[in-house]
Amino acid sequence: MSAVGLAMPLLEADEQDAPLRLRRSASNTTSQVAIVGSNICPIESLDYEIIENDFVRPDWRSRELVEICQYTLMKWILCLLIGHIVGLLGFFINLAVENLAGLKFVVTSNMMLARKFMMAFLIFSSSNLGFTLFATLITAFVAPEAAGSGIPEVKAYLNGVDAPAIFSLRTLIVKIVGSICAVSSSLNVGKAGPMVHCGACIAALLGQGGSKKFGLTWKWLRFFKNDRDRRDLVTCGSAAGIAAAFRAPVGGVLFSLEEMASWWRGALLWRTFFTTAVVAIVLRALIDLCLSGQCGLFGTGGLIMYDVTSVDITYHLWDVPPVLLLALGGGILGSIYNSLLNTVLKIYNVINKKGVALRILLACSLSIFTSCLLFGLPWLASCRSCPSDPSEPCPTIGRSGNYKKFQCPPGYYNDLASLFFNTNDDAIKNLFSKGTDSEFQHSSMLIFFVSCFFLSIFSYGIVAPAGLFVPVIVTGAAYGRFVGMLFGSKSNLNHGLFAVLGSASLLGGSMRTTVSLCVIILELTNNLLLLPLIMIVLLISKSVADVFNENVYDLIMTFKGLPYLEDYAEPYMRQLTVGDVVTGPLQIFHGFEKVSNVVHVLRTTRHNGFPVIDEPPFSESPVLYGLILRAHLLTLLRSKAFSRTPSPVSRDAIALFSADDFAKKGLGHDDRIEDLALSDEEMEMYVDLHPFTNTSPYTVVETMSLGKALMLFRQVGLRHLLVIPRFSGRHPVVGILTRHDFRPEHVLDLHPLLANSRWKRLRLRFPQLRKLV
Amino acid sequence: MSAVGLAMPLLEADEQDAPLRLRRSASNTTSQVAIVGSNICPIESLDYEIIENDFVRPDWRSRELVEICQYTLMKWILCLLIGHIVGLLGFFINLAVENLAGLKFVVTSNMMLARKFMMAFLIFSSSNLGFTLFATLITAFVAPEAAGSGIPEVKAYLNGVDAPAIFSLRTLIVKIVGSICAVSSSLNVGKAGPMVHCGACIAALLGQGGSKKFGLTWKWLRFFKNDRDRRDLVTCGSAAGIAAAFRAPVGGVLFSLEEMASWWRGALLWRTFFTTAVVAIVLRALIDLCLSGQCGLFGTGGLIMYDVTSVDITYHLWDVPPVLLLALGGGILGSIYNSLLNTVLKIYNVINKKGVALRILLACSLSIFTSCLLFGLPWLASCRSCPSDPSEPCPTIGRSGNYKKFQCPPGYYNDLASLFFNTNDDAIKNLFSKGTDSEFQHSSMLIFFVSCFFLSIFSYGIVAPAGLFVPVIVTGAAYGRFVGMLFGSKSNLNHGLFAVLGSASLLGGSMRTTVSLCVIILELTNNLLLLPLIMIVLLISKSVADVFNENVYDLIMTFKGLPYLEDYAEPYMRQLTVGDVVTGPLQIFHGFEKVSNVVHVLRTTRHNGFPVIDEPPFSESPVLYGLILRAHLLTLLRSKAFSRTPSPVSRDAIALFSADDFAKKGLGHDDRIEDLALSDEEMEMYVDLHPFTNTSPYTVVETMSLGKALMLFRQVGLRHLLVIPRFSGRHPVVGILTRHDFRPEHVLDLHPLLANSRWKRLRLRFPQLRKLV
Repeated sequence: MSAVGLAMPLLEADEQDAPLRLRRSASNTTSQVAIVGSNICPIESLDYEIIENDFVRPDWRSRELVEICQYTLMKWILCLLIGHIVGLLGFFINLAVENLAGLKFVVTSNMMLARKFMMAFLIFSSSNLGFTLFATLITAFVAPEAAGSGIPEVKAYLNGVDAPAIFSLRTLIVKIVGSICAVSSSLNVGKAGPMVHCGACIAALLGQGGSKKFGLTWKWLRFFKNDRDRRDLVTCGSAAGIAAAFRAPVGGVLFSLEEMASWWRGALLWRTFFTTAVVAIVLRALIDLCLSGQCGLFGTGGLIMYDVTSVDITYHLWDVPPVLLLALGGGILGSIYNSLLNTVLKIYNVINKKGVALRILLACSLSIFTSCLLFGLPWLASCRSCPSDPSEPCPTIGRSGNYKKFQCPPGYYNDLASLFFNTNDDAIKNLFSKGTDSEFQHSSMLIFFVSCFFLSIFSYGIVAPAGLFVPVIVTGAAYGRFVGMLFGSKSNLNHGLFAVLGSASLLGGSMRTTVSLCVIILELTNNLLLLPLIMIVLLISKSVADVFNENVYDLIMTFKGLPYLEDYAEPYMRQLTVGDVVTGPLQIFHGFEKVSNVVHVLRTTRHNGFPVIDEPPFSESPVLYGLILRAHLLTLLRSKAFSRTPSPVSRDAIALFSADDFAKKGLGHDDRIEDLALSDEEMEMYVDLHPFTNTSPYTVVETMSLGKALMLFRQVGLRHLLVIPRFSGRHPVVGILTRHDFRPEHVLDLHPLLANSRWKRLRLRFPQLRKLV
Repeated sequence: MSAVGLAMPLLEADEQDAPLRLRRSASNTTSQVAIVGSNICPIESLDYEIIENDFVRPDWRSRELVEICQYTLMKWILCLLIGHIVGLLGFFINLAVENLAGLKFVVTSNMMLARKFMMAFLIFSSSNLGFTLFATLITAFVAPEAAGSGIPEVKAYLNGVDAPAIFSLRTLIVKIVGSICAVSSSLNVGKAGPMVHCGACIAALLGQGGSKKFGLTWKWLRFFKNDRDRRDLVTCGSAAGIAAAFRAPVGGVLFSLEEMASWWRGALLWRTFFTTAVVAIVLRALIDLCLSGQCGLFGTGGLIMYDVTSVDITYHLWDVPPVLLLALGGGILGSIYNSLLNTVLKIYNVINKKGVALRILLACSLSIFTSCLLFGLPWLASCRSCPSDPSEPCPTIGRSGNYKKFQCPPGYYNDLASLFFNTNDDAIKNLFSKGTDSEFQHSSMLIFFVSCFFLSIFSYGIVAPAGLFVPVIVTGAAYGRFVGMLFGSKSNLNHGLFAVLGSASLLGGSMRTTVSLCVIILELTNNLLLLPLIMIVLLISKSVADVFNENVYDLIMTFKGLPYLEDYAEPYMRQLTVGDVVTGPLQIFHGFEKVSNVVHVLRTTRHNGFPVIDEPPFSESPVLYGLILRAHLLTLLRSKAFSRTPSPVSRDAIALFSADDFAKKGLGHDDRIEDLALSDEEMEMYVDLHPFTNTSPYTVVETMSLGKALMLFRQVGLRHLLVIPRFSGRHPVVGILTRHDFRPEHVLDLHPLLANSRWKRLRLRFPQLRKLV
């Protein structure tokens, strides 16, 4: 009656989905632990399949109409709440940034006006340093998980990888405050990525009924008891984040569909759409409020962030070649951007590992360097005289404007300062604006483009919330405008439109999404006549960049060691069978199992699922009964429903359990075997696992091709896949496949010959080819 | 050595995916055959899984880099071709309609101007009758499959249901010509649905290398040998159809994603986007051509069909309640529309079944009735004097315009004639236009709305290509404008914007898509400031309408008997196991099988897949070897690679086969067992099935819950799912599950008790509830 393989130590090869911390593979080709916010953390997998056992299933079956309505209503109420909160939050972050950064620019500008240049620089750089320092300090000490964009972590979560604490209240607050400070500090970082992370956080927290750690829980909110429902909420939250950041509700839905989500259903599309519609309405109402001038320096921004509606767009066939060149260049620049970013992240990682002090020092030196550049570079530009009939005051004094005075005499403006000495949003507005073809000098535009390009790469890796979207847009706009200036009057398109197309090309080259970027750009600029050109640009830049490397989020995910599972099988997986990657023996329980065995296995392994088999005399022949989860075993042990002999559990004992006991706990709130105290007598008793076992786990025969098994695993969203033997008479289960076993790195470790095969070579030479097929 | 169940007649209960013609269930609760174009046809299922056997797999493995590049390139070239052809076709259809219908209106208007009213009516009605008659005749006699919108058939194909001849060249040509005639005949039918069908047709024909029947095949195009690649092409084609019909490339992608496709991958999104981008560019270039006035009456239409860019949109909180009311009404009207349409289709079906003559008579009487209404109703409206400063000539004489003269004296116009006596596109433009708040009378708008509503319902079911999109848009615009007129000056929104929102509400109430409709409406009107309102309207109208019935395409699919498989499990399926629905012994082959047995089984059944088992002495115990397809068996029989004893097939014999032999034939080109001639001697020989068997079919254990098996079947896109026993020692395969076995109607037939259960009752009372969950 002892469990097979009980006496064995923790096995490296077959791990039944233990946290990946335990899995440093010998060859060390890949890091199997996640780097989240400069910390190395274990990762959990998530189970997006609906688990059924005798408790979870009857619960579902016995639900009354009222309960079903409550369940449905709850989903919609949560989406409504997410929409409202994310909408408000997005507005608040914008408001805070505009006012903080605006105040800084107003004060500095006033100093400049009084020609106290040194004083202005000191105020400018010290306030920047202050903001950066604060953002870095709270991130490093309170929530290291809040560093960076957050999109890769959310994307991994939606794929079934749970890095701890990424959705905690602590992370949320640090992300909000840190993002405001980082953006206000004139670092070249964006707020869209952090907004996505915030949206996902809010959704996850609402889905688990609030934050347990801080006692902020509402019982009526704790309605969703499985990973699947929470995943759906997080998808809605991330869509709401993009919608709030760019005031682009449809773009938000599409971004979460195209880039974020790994599983998708029609009903989810609808609910995501509802959430972003709520965000749009909340934003629209708040903007109405600001029209009366109560938002300080936020001004009276409309729903469209960078409006180019008023521009007449006429172009003909001969305008297309310059656009094609622009797109080609954008694709190449995008892939260079991605690979430089990846390199910088690796270098920063070396520094960051050496301690908190160095991390903070890195951020501070970067802030000082940025301040010097922003303040120093405009001096290189010569003052230009204001146009005779400017569309707005020239030179502008104060926060924003197309014609910044900076150090110039009255009647003159500094074109480089209009770009550098501004928030990113204002710089983008300037670059996109029409009727300004003669405003900028070639040299200024080139300086601005190069500085932005490198500043955004160097700013991303610091230990503070930092998005990539807006820096890429502003860099791309500068690039596009520069290309437009090169073509000059040879094109019908004005330089503002070139800037829009330049942004599109760099976004396409870096993010590599198509439909969602297209819609986001349209929602940012509100001019559909550009649509055919934007589509061409995105297609070309993405295709060109795909030849060289992966999209920026995938690179960051790989760098962080998040084991993302793609939805296609590598070609060599079709040559392998499931049996080729499953290596036994494995941990197994019997239907009636000794308590001490269960405890021992749970203590000595970190496995998450165990096959349950019945053997004679309890069945004719050995037979696979099902799969039991670690969490359910712990619930069972805690209840102490044991018996002295291997016999079915009594009805009375079963009545002690409710479906709630088997509900998935909130993130990071799982029980631990170490907290369990059992007497020696109890240890010698037996426990009946049958009612607690999921009797219909997905299974594959050992001769199934690995590629086909992967499709099943990935499409259905599994955490464990049982492998059964082809020939009967043997042990009824051969092994368990988990996410780890499908990872190309693992497969190639096991079968190094494949690495030399034609397929592997192909993959190495043309890593992106498989995505095209 | 005889096959199990060989002697049995065709089994009703377990049919291994025979064409559904054979499956009239006894209770007759559902029709298991498809009504395609008034004909009753057998339906085939499609296999979207990649089949692997010894031939298909090595082929894949042995592909050289050149071949892979060729394969990838081929996919993109085909998308490019599809985009070009569909773009050209969309433009051609528009051009033809505008010129045919325009000519008709010009001639009639000239008659009216000469006050020859009777003559005008005769010309108008007889030309309408001529167009209708021609469209009906070619549809009825040449390609009955071309009748109707085509979207339901394409949607079913993408779900894995292949109704014959829907993608033939014949169907395509009839669809194009019939659609032009039907729309030109002033019937209230659209051209968007037919465009989708045409796009899908073009994609399917290109994918199989042209039309075999007409000898138009290109060998280099015949590259795609499985259903999966063809499905992807058809998805691209349907997206291109919407893109060409509405000049809405992003809307096309989203429509095919949200409404049409059942399976979706990132790579497919990108390819669809590429296809619609090509469509957009082709259309943009052709429109450039027309600017020089070479397109006859087509005029100089821009890329945006119903442009409302120039309208200043300002609205505040108090403008929202009227919009909410509008959306509520739109939802209710939409569901009434769907259920009336369904009823009318059923009535028409009774008429259509009685013969071709009656079908044509029905269409002709409808045409005469429509002509009478269109010509007669404007006489009810009183002539109104032209506004003092009209934005365009008043009254208009000729084809289009806001102020039609009709019977009125100079200086006056007939507002009802501006709507009725026009193409649908022009009517929509008039309804959407700004600054025309005082143009229409309440009574005119109401008359127009009611007539459009019923005319579009009665026009759909006739035997001619007929779309639903444009009629719904024009009806909704009239409804919205009428509501706008009721609110009058109480709202900041002008009546044109109310018309846009009215269209959105009726579309939402009838089609029930969200994101794609939202984007299509934006691309039609080019004003993003309306976005929050459009989102609210779509959400409300869809939610309200979902309470009452299903979306219009699903209703038509159910009516036509297309066995669409939803991507969620009915709740009662979680109570059943796979074993509960698999019944009876099934057709099985042995690894070495007698030729006569194979021929007999193939002759007496229409099954499509057969399990292959090995029994002693060829294996230790009975074991499931795999699954063999009917098509592969036929290939094998045709090759006559037989041997006198049950022994493995020789190497020489294997060399006779190539992977091409096992490639899926084009639609409707499968081999038939009846065409095969075998001598008596051959019949007594043996055939080795092993190399031709798919050795890793997906399997489920008989105790798996039906709901989970459905998820596997649907998510992976299977045609056959093998059921294996839980306990070894029994027969190694229990049965085969096919699409049919997962259909709710079939399950409830087998388990009538479930129909009385709580779940069933719930489903009957709230059929839409499950979609919300």
